[in-house]
Amino acid sequence: MSNTRKPLIFVTNDDGYKAKGLEALVEMVRPFGQVIVVAPEEANSGMSHAITVKVPVRLKRRKVSDDVEVYSVTGTPVDCVKLAMNQLFKSRTPDLLVSGINHGSNASVSIVYSGTMAAALEGSLYKIPSIGFSVLDYSDTPDFEATVKYGRTIVQNVLKFGLAENICLNVNVPVLPADEIKGIKVVRQNKGVWREEFEKRIDPRGVDYFWLTGYFQNEEPEATDTDEYYLSKGYITIVPIHADFTCYKEMKRIEGWNLDFVDGKKHEAKSKIEDKE
Amino acid sequence: MSNTRKPLIFVTNDDGYKAKGLEALVEMVRPFGQVIVVAPEEANSGMSHAITVKVPVRLKRRKVSDDVEVYSVTGTPVDCVKLAMNQLFKSRTPDLLVSGINHGSNASVSIVYSGTMAAALEGSLYKIPSIGFSVLDYSDTPDFEATVKYGRTIVQNVLKFGLAENICLNVNVPVLPADEIKGIKVVRQNKGVWREEFEKRIDPRGVDYFWLTGYFQNEEPEATDTDEYYLSKGYITIVPIHADFTCYKEMKRIEGWNLDFVDGKKHEAKSKIEDKE
Repeated sequence: MSNTRKPLIFVTNDDGYKAKGLEALVEMVRPFGQVIVVAPEEANSGMSHAITVKVPVRLKRRKVSDDVEVYSVTGTPVDCVKLAMNQLFKSRTPDLLVSGINHGSNASVSIVYSGTMAAALEGSLYKIPSIGFSVLDYSDTPDFEATVKYGRTIVQNVLKFGLAENICLNVNVPVLPADEIKGIKVVRQNKGVWREEFEKRIDPRGVDYFWLTGYFQNEEPEATDTDEYYLSKGYITIVPIHADFTCYKEMKRIEGWNLDFVDGKKHEAKSKIEDKE
Repeated sequence: MSNTRKPLIFVTNDDGYKAKGLEALVEMVRPFGQVIVVAPEEANSGMSHAITVKVPVRLKRRKVSDDVEVYSVTGTPVDCVKLAMNQLFKSRTPDLLVSGINHGSNASVSIVYSGTMAAALEGSLYKIPSIGFSVLDYSDTPDFEATVKYGRTIVQNVLKFGLAENICLNVNVPVLPADEIKGIKVVRQNKGVWREEFEKRIDPRGVDYFWLTGYFQNEEPEATDTDEYYLSKGYITIVPIHADFTCYKEMKRIEGWNLDFVDGKKHEAKSKIEDKE
């Protein structure tokens, strides 16, 4: 980041370029630099890290003002990041990517389904310090005040200290007035699962169809060092995230398996390479 | 798993219930138990962990034979897992979930975009031992012989030893005749990134559109303990995967930040809970 230039800030989301959460996010980061918004044309909830491969995508310039440019992409949040990097940020990599503000929690295992966090993770793969913001309010009109206020503290720290390569931050904000927030905690991701209760209905032609619904189940309700725990206590949580899904602990155990037996007999490779492990 | 019952095996994929890779996967696991296929109605490449929330999904019974039942779902690979667990496996949880066989690599960072691996990861969240299989052949007619043969060794081991809770396996197979495979290696996920070269075209009305293309860039070409390395040397690779995306190493560093300064002054919480860290 040059000292003479304002930071270049790439804003995106999964709810689309017209979303209220995006407006609040622009308000949060505007004091820190030049803002370029590249967000989906339509709402993209639950799109996770999906990319558009079957059809082409389009990029439209929507609005340009003194310090904010807005573009829309007819694709997923991850398409937005890829297309923006390829078309708009060729000559200068953004100093920061922020995604959100998502209506609803992306704590615990919800991160797996989240388009908001996928955009941040994609940013981190491009080595941009990236942050996804979510507020635990599923309503159409969440109160973003606390997220904007404390989000600025997080943005300031990221711009000052940077993030390690390929790391992004998953920030979640409890539903509280800004002055009742207890503080900001750096924590690990809670274990949990969505228990899916599909709702079965019958269409006018007499054929079944299913609506996805469901509820979150905390699988470690006793834990006191996780995002779920601190959110329930009124803290904003930060979980540093990476795209290395390897479970190193399980690697050790599986190495003890009988993986040399193939078709009922010991496999003899013709010319084994030297193991450097 | 009961000793008196054959294992119940849930087969899915991202290329759709008619895909050749699915046929080969059924052939792989059929000797081990009762097979139920629940797969997308259409090809779903690049869908990652997406779920269908805007429209309802439908489940259709397609084929029933002595030991294989086939269903299709008008949704994503993850929808298939969720709907199957909710509608078809209510009374008995599968003993194994297998996903694939994908045409093309899901090694390294490709896992992030993969519907094949998302289905396996979703299975692991339901505590089903789950395996995703991919062969490094992007053609329409890959040779699945090596995957079927060595895949059986992996399936046997998983049925015998089990997997730790919430773990699935990412199995990739090099493009080699079965008798030239060097062996099976348990390894970590290689660091890498897809460099996206969007192809810009002009439609008949004179408007731009973009096709996603791009190439994989290995970001640790010197590493000798990763999936990319062993695949290049003729080995089948197994990476144990989990849905905990926390980067524990980065947590420690971020805890040293100035997260107590909000709006330029030190944040004093009204009633801090006791930190149990």
